[in-house]
Amino acid sequence: MKEIDKDTAFTFANELADAAAKITLPLFRQSLDVSSKMQDGFDPVTKADKDTEQKLRDLINAQYPDHAILGEEFGFKAGTGYQWTIDPIDGTRAYISGMPSWGTLIALSKITDDGNLTALMGLADQPYIKERYFGWMSGDAAEASMHSDGSDKKNMATRPCKAIEDAVLATTDSNLFMNTPTENIWLNISSQTRLNRYGGDWYNYMLLADGHIDVVIEQGLQAYDIQALIPIISAAGGIVSDWKGNTPMQGGEVLACGDADLHAQIVRLLYA
Amino acid sequence: MKEIDKDTAFTFANELADAAAKITLPLFRQSLDVSSKMQDGFDPVTKADKDTEQKLRDLINAQYPDHAILGEEFGFKAGTGYQWTIDPIDGTRAYISGMPSWGTLIALSKITDDGNLTALMGLADQPYIKERYFGWMSGDAAEASMHSDGSDKKNMATRPCKAIEDAVLATTDSNLFMNTPTENIWLNISSQTRLNRYGGDWYNYMLLADGHIDVVIEQGLQAYDIQALIPIISAAGGIVSDWKGNTPMQGGEVLACGDADLHAQIVRLLYA
Repeated sequence: MKEIDKDTAFTFANELADAAAKITLPLFRQSLDVSSKMQDGFDPVTKADKDTEQKLRDLINAQYPDHAILGEEFGFKAGTGYQWTIDPIDGTRAYISGMPSWGTLIALSKITDDGNLTALMGLADQPYIKERYFGWMSGDAAEASMHSDGSDKKNMATRPCKAIEDAVLATTDSNLFMNTPTENIWLNISSQTRLNRYGGDWYNYMLLADGHIDVVIEQGLQAYDIQALIPIISAAGGIVSDWKGNTPMQGGEVLACGDADLHAQIVRLLYA
Repeated sequence: MKEIDKDTAFTFANELADAAAKITLPLFRQSLDVSSKMQDGFDPVTKADKDTEQKLRDLINAQYPDHAILGEEFGFKAGTGYQWTIDPIDGTRAYISGMPSWGTLIALSKITDDGNLTALMGLADQPYIKERYFGWMSGDAAEASMHSDGSDKKNMATRPCKAIEDAVLATTDSNLFMNTPTENIWLNISSQTRLNRYGGDWYNYMLLADGHIDVVIEQGLQAYDIQALIPIISAAGGIVSDWKGNTPMQGGEVLACGDADLHAQIVRLLYA
């Protein structure tokens, strides 16, 4: 099997993100009459989601017909060697409400001999703001970078933050913790941090990789919500795991920290 | 007293917003070591907030020495004829965490003979995304517009949405309703809407003015959080009031709707 190197992965993932933006952007901030939209059954979000994923699947199948593909909209296609994992629009509530914090997430993982996945590359794109995040986590070629306007490149690194009382914490929807067994864990942690920020979806993890946020805690994620973010966070020096400290390639409960010491502290609080 | 017309107000408010961006942008997304920042006492957010407001006060005092000024950081300066109300950085939690949804808010109001304020002009600027919102609500010259990159101009209008079950609802932090007398009111309304979105600060109101969000409900706002937004929402065809339906020039409980019928329904639910 032909190995995919960083430049090849980056070039192809950029082509995929460009193709996605051609579909998502024209349908973003369409000012439709809500009622007539409902009546004629046209839903620009569903259309953008499905059309984008189909386009990316077509491009991947043409270039790498043997690879596996997992997508939010059209499920799993088995394959060999590598797997592409796609979330055409992460943050659909942001997309629907006109907030430019949604993103197109594209992950490339290696399929190991025992059938598991090893994260290799992630790309996360916000085409309205023109921010494209890229991560590659293979050995000495590790890289986390942000590309503005398709040209500028800025290397990213998480920031040191060893004390929970200094930490900026983000989660997309704190209501998801309420009236669940995790409510008290959440209240305990979020009462100790310096500042808590809600909303954000995938974008919180990129702000963590770029050194502005220290902790992201979430639950109920899907594999396609997190796989693209893992190489970016990791190559930037951050730690991303499930709440027990294991690799979160299948989603579920996710904890990301910019500082390894803080990560260890919060894992202890999650299971105190 | 010399009357200020729309073009004069727009030109001067643009100068103010340009001056603000020169201070806020270089301090945005500074990747400081959190601990050392705490130790040496340097806080880029406080610096950006104070420096921006001081600069805007200086420019206003030079141009209109008789006008009143109210700002978040340096309080009230009495005056005659008109009042400028400034929030140098609305959404400081977004600013701190690197999220480009903070904004500089600038309002111009007329001081009536009985000493009250009548909203006239609002400008809200997000210089990282390069979106500048402008509203003028005086009679037949009413205008709500969004200006990208300092040049493009797009007129804005709210969208029709008569049924609460079709509505997109936004609030910055739903936790603020919890364990307060308004918890049940909030849960009643937010359980009937089509989609709820958290985070956003001032930006939610601009997305409402542009027809992407139908309802924003908040409490605990300050006068400088809302005065700049009122002319933009109103000129776009929306309704912004306190929870009883009165003008919310002093902040407090705020309800904004794109559709007047929906506004009337939600006022009833707020006092059911």
